[in-house]
Parts: sequence; structure tokens; C-alpha cells
Amino acid sequence: MSHEILIVTESELKRVLNLGRSMNDLMEKAFASLAAGEVIMPPILSMDLPKVNAEVDVKTAYIPGFDHFAIKVSPGFFDNPKLGLPSLNGLMMLLSAKTGLASAVFLDNGYLTDLRTAAAGGVVARHMAPKKVGTAGVIGTGVQARLQIIAAHIERPFKKVLVWGRNRDHAEACARDIAYEIGVEAKVADSAEQLVKESQLVVTTTPSREPLIDADWMHPDLHITAMGADQEGKNELDPEMVAQADIFVCDRVSQCEKLGELRAAMESGNWPSDQTPAELGEIIAGTKPNRTHDASITICDLTGTGAQDTAIANHAFELAHSLDFGTIIKTD
Amino acid sequence: MSHEILIVTESELKRVLNLGRSMNDLMEKAFASLAAGEVIMPPILSMDLPKVNAEVDVKTAYIPGFDHFAIKVSPGFFDNPKLGLPSLNGLMMLLSAKTGLASAVFLDNGYLTDLRTAAAGGVVARHMAPKKVGTAGVIGTGVQARLQIIAAHIERPFKKVLVWGRNRDHAEACARDIAYEIGVEAKVADSAEQLVKESQLVVTTTPSREPLIDADWMHPDLHITAMGADQEGKNELDPEMVAQADIFVCDRVSQCEKLGELRAAMESGNWPSDQTPAELGEIIAGTKPNRTHDASITICDLTGTGAQDTAIANHAFELAHSLDFGTIIKTD
Repeated sequence: MSHEILIVTESELKRVLNLGRSMNDLMEKAFASLAAGEVIMPPILSMDLPKVNAEVDVKTAYIPGFDHFAIKVSPGFFDNPKLGLPSLNGLMMLLSAKTGLASAVFLDNGYLTDLRTAAAGGVVARHMAPKKVGTAGVIGTGVQARLQIIAAHIERPFKKVLVWGRNRDHAEACARDIAYEIGVEAKVADSAEQLVKESQLVVTTTPSREPLIDADWMHPDLHITAMGADQEGKNELDPEMVAQADIFVCDRVSQCEKLGELRAAMESGNWPSDQTPAELGEIIAGTKPNRTHDASITICDLTGTGAQDTAIANHAFELAHSLDFGTIIKTD
Repeated sequence: MSHEILIVTESELKRVLNLGRSMNDLMEKAFASLAAGEVIMPPILSMDLPKVNAEVDVKTAYIPGFDHFAIKVSPGFFDNPKLGLPSLNGLMMLLSAKTGLASAVFLDNGYLTDLRTAAAGGVVARHMAPKKVGTAGVIGTGVQARLQIIAAHIERPFKKVLVWGRNRDHAEACARDIAYEIGVEAKVADSAEQLVKESQLVVTTTPSREPLIDADWMHPDLHITAMGADQEGKNELDPEMVAQADIFVCDRVSQCEKLGELRAAMESGNWPSDQTPAELGEIIAGTKPNRTHDASITICDLTGTGAQDTAIANHAFELAHSLDFGTIIKTD
């Protein structure tokens, strides 16, 4: 059975695919489909490899209307830095939604995931952040700390960014990168508390397993996007915050109650077991209550969905065809 | 992050990788590791797509001692024949067990699965079939009907093969292919009953959802390998047979009780809920009772495991290196 498969590398993708308003649009569309109940998204396949300090996740989602669906493999090998390699890498496959035949393999080392994850934060800022954001704060100093701020700045062109992380040198480097990339004033905050109190939009991007933000620090005119917790045990927000916020939203409730901030809130009894949070797609569609005025406090819990992978992989495949990049392999 | 990934096609694999005693050896090793508790094998990721009459399964398993682990994507799009395409296809990825980096992508359209599935039947024949098999019978007329008989013949060089299927033309073609391939007399049986009664080794290879073999047809000096049922609802054997056999063995109990003949036997009350069947790896290791004499009746329930995928994909990767085939893609 002969057919052609397109192999696309990370560097090819980086040349043509970046954050921007249209990437946020693409993720908005993915979340809207997800909440409309059109998406078929099975639970994540997760393989823990404690002996080698590693884990592997596989995600997929089928979205009607997209020509293909993605299957994404995300390995995390946390001893890699000792070998001079990043902990996270991965690849994505794209299969025809009509025949199941493989159409493309993206050897992206997680680049598409970086983009779609940051763009989800952009969509959240578009729909949930106060209309006027003067200062945005980011907790964490890694790749997502930079990208989340870039994606949010497209939607709320704030003038100032505060960065906080456990390692001050890393925080300084992150602030410099952000200042360079989006041309705003970016400084290291003295504490997470100062950062939260002075910001109208806060993004948390860490793998923390205990809260980094106190409920006491919340103030009117605040939105928080918590995107670090994506596994059982991870937790960035004081569990009381989830119930105290005027609006609490999940990217996908069934995932957040296992992997996200919602899990910690439920386990500590801070979330009433008979209540179901809204999903981001419902906020986009306007079918669930959102922020009513700038003084509201809102929180969004992002765990990452296969629907985002399918959306960005379809887009990358179309780009590869129109711009003619990648290597074609005939299977027979 | 630059590294090299090997892309290997179905036709490249077919030139160098086939059934044979060493392939059976490889699967024997995989099952032995599985039963020794060394393998980490998460539940299958399964996505049903009823609107397009399709399903997609993803399997993986980590086996200590192998340099890599496989992640296999198996789509089944059952309207494909209308388009002139096979229903089943798929691809396999191979990731480093040390760093998680992708080492290879096998665009095999399911060829490696065909081999490892048949070789599992070969291992079962090696360990569980009567020492002397004069006649082997196969129910079903597809690819696995042919391959299962080839893999079993390596272990028990029977002189005669009976084939039975719902479509007599398909059965004739299957018998002709088997006769040509292994040089034995191969005939179409008049009925499944005749086939079972005249065979010492029977392999069932169909996607049936109701029993094709009656418990009444079983006789001393018989082994049955049931490899068709690999999904909830599939069932080839009269549920009473599972309990009536002297020895009943699963490739993986946790899978068979959801997807295999064991499921049907448990649901119909034919398998005592407080009893756990032996696994194939335990039979290989000699730690659980096996056939004691030729007159015994034995049954093995195969659902297919990620451990087999990891074993065959490692082997294919080594072959590609030593024989220098495949296309190398630099990721950066």
C-alpha cells in the first residue's frame, strides 16, 4: 500500500510557525469545538518510568471539520540535563480523519506543544483578563514563562511585566528576554506576593507541587492563568483561591479534576463536589458566566488538550503544503 | 536540539524482516519479561470514531534491557475497503529508553504488528501445543490466518492444514497460499466443527462477536490459540471452553479480562471470579502449570501487547543499522 508521508523537522517549523493573533484564533477554535461536544478526546495515555526518572504521555483528539487528527508523544526524561539534553522533547503524528493513514510526522521536539500551550494562554487572556492590563506577572522562568507573556501581550498590550522565580539569575534572564521580545519594561519582582499584588494578569508556569500563591494576595481586577499543573500532584495555587474567585474555568474539566488546580481544590474540600466549573470553550461561546466587570477575580486552569494538538498540527500540515517544506517519504 | 531520526518504510522492512524461529525467540523473550513484572505497560489508549466507522489504538511498553521502547499507533478505518484501501494500517515510533528522544519512525502500515502477532502464536505453539501435531486448523482467512500457520509450523511441523471461513472462496485462496508457503497439504474444511475435531492445533483469527467453536467439539490432544478477540465485544470461543480446558492461559490477564476470550467467560459466569489465569510468560518461565500430557486440552487467549511492539521495533532498528537501510532525517 503506497502513500506519501511528510516528515517535518523542528527547524522547518520554526521558520514559518510562530505565536501571533492567528495562532490564538486557531486555539480559540479548538476550545470552542471541545466545549461544543464535537471533539472525541480519550483520556491521556501516561507511562511512568520511575527507575529512569521519566514519564511519557500520549494525547490525541478528533475534531470534526479538521482533515486530520494528531497523536502526540511527549516524553519527559528529567535526568537529560545531566547529558546536556532538554528534559522534554517529543513528536507529533498527523493521521487522515477519513482513512487513518499517516499524512505527516512532525519531529518537532515539542515546539508545536510550546506554541499551542502558550496560545491557549493567549485565548484565556483574550476572554478572561480585565480589559485594561497595565502590569502582567509571570511566575516561573522557563520557555513557557516567555511564550505565555508573548501570547497574552497580543491580546492585552500591557506596558510592564514582572517576573518571579526561585532562581534570581534565571528570573533576570527571563525578564531580559521578555523585554527584548515585546519591547516592554520587564523586571524581577522581589516576591511572588509583590508580583500578584501589582499585576492585573498573572500566569503561573512552574512544575510546583505546592502552592506558590496565597489566597490573601488576590485583589479585585485580577486574572490568573495557572498552566503549570498538568499531572497528579502538581499544584501552583492555594486551593482556597479556586472557590474564592468570582469565576473559575477549566480547559477541560475531566482533566483538571485529575491533573490541574481543580484536583488540589477538590482534594482539600475547597471545591463543592456538586459543582462543575465552566470550560474555556463555554466562555468563548458565551454559554457560561464570565467576568462581569473589571473588578472581578477570575482564574483559568490549563492542563493541555489533544484538541490543541490536532488544531496546530493541521495548521502546520497546510503550511507545509502551501510553502513546500518538509521531506516526502513514499511508504512503498 | 539536533539529533538524527531514522525513517523506515514498509517495503524496506519486508525485505529483511520475516517470520522464523528467531522471530518466535524474540517474542518469547518479550513475554518472559512481561510476566517477570519487569515491563511497564500502561492501558491501551483507545479512541472510537463511530461517525466514520473507525477506531484508533495506541500501545506502548517499556522493557528494561531494551535500548528503546515503541509507541504504536493502530488505526482501523472500516470503510477504507470502499476506497480500495485496507482497513488497518498504522505506524510505530521508537524512543530512546535513556533520553526519550525519538530514534526511529517505522512507516510500516501494520507490517511489524502482523509479524509480532503471528510470532506470539508461534511461541504459544512452542510451549502449549501437543508435542505431535499432525493437523493444524485455522479459522479465518485473512492475513493472520496465513501468518499464524507459518509461525506455528516452525514449532510443530504438521503435514496437514485445514482452513475454515464464512466465505468459501476466501478459504480456498487461504489454503492455496498456505500450501504454497510451507509446502504442506492444505484444504478447506466443511465446517468449523470438522476442523476442530480433526486438528491437534487450532488457531482462531477472526473479528467475530459470537462464538465460532462449540465446547462440545473439544477433544483430548488439542490446543487452541484464540487471537481474534482484541476488543470489548469480540468473542470466538464458547465461553464454557475457557473453564473446561485443562489449562487456560492469557498473554496479559489485565487485557484479556477486558478484551479477550476471558472477558466473555467472566461475563457469562463461566470463569470463577476468584481465579486468575496464568500468563504466557509464566508458562515460558515454567512457574505456572502447563500441559502435562498430550491428551490435555489447552487454550491460549492472545490480545496483543505493547511488549511485543517494543521487542520487534528494537530488533528492526538494530537491523536497519547493521544492514544500512532507511532514511536519516536530521531534526535540526
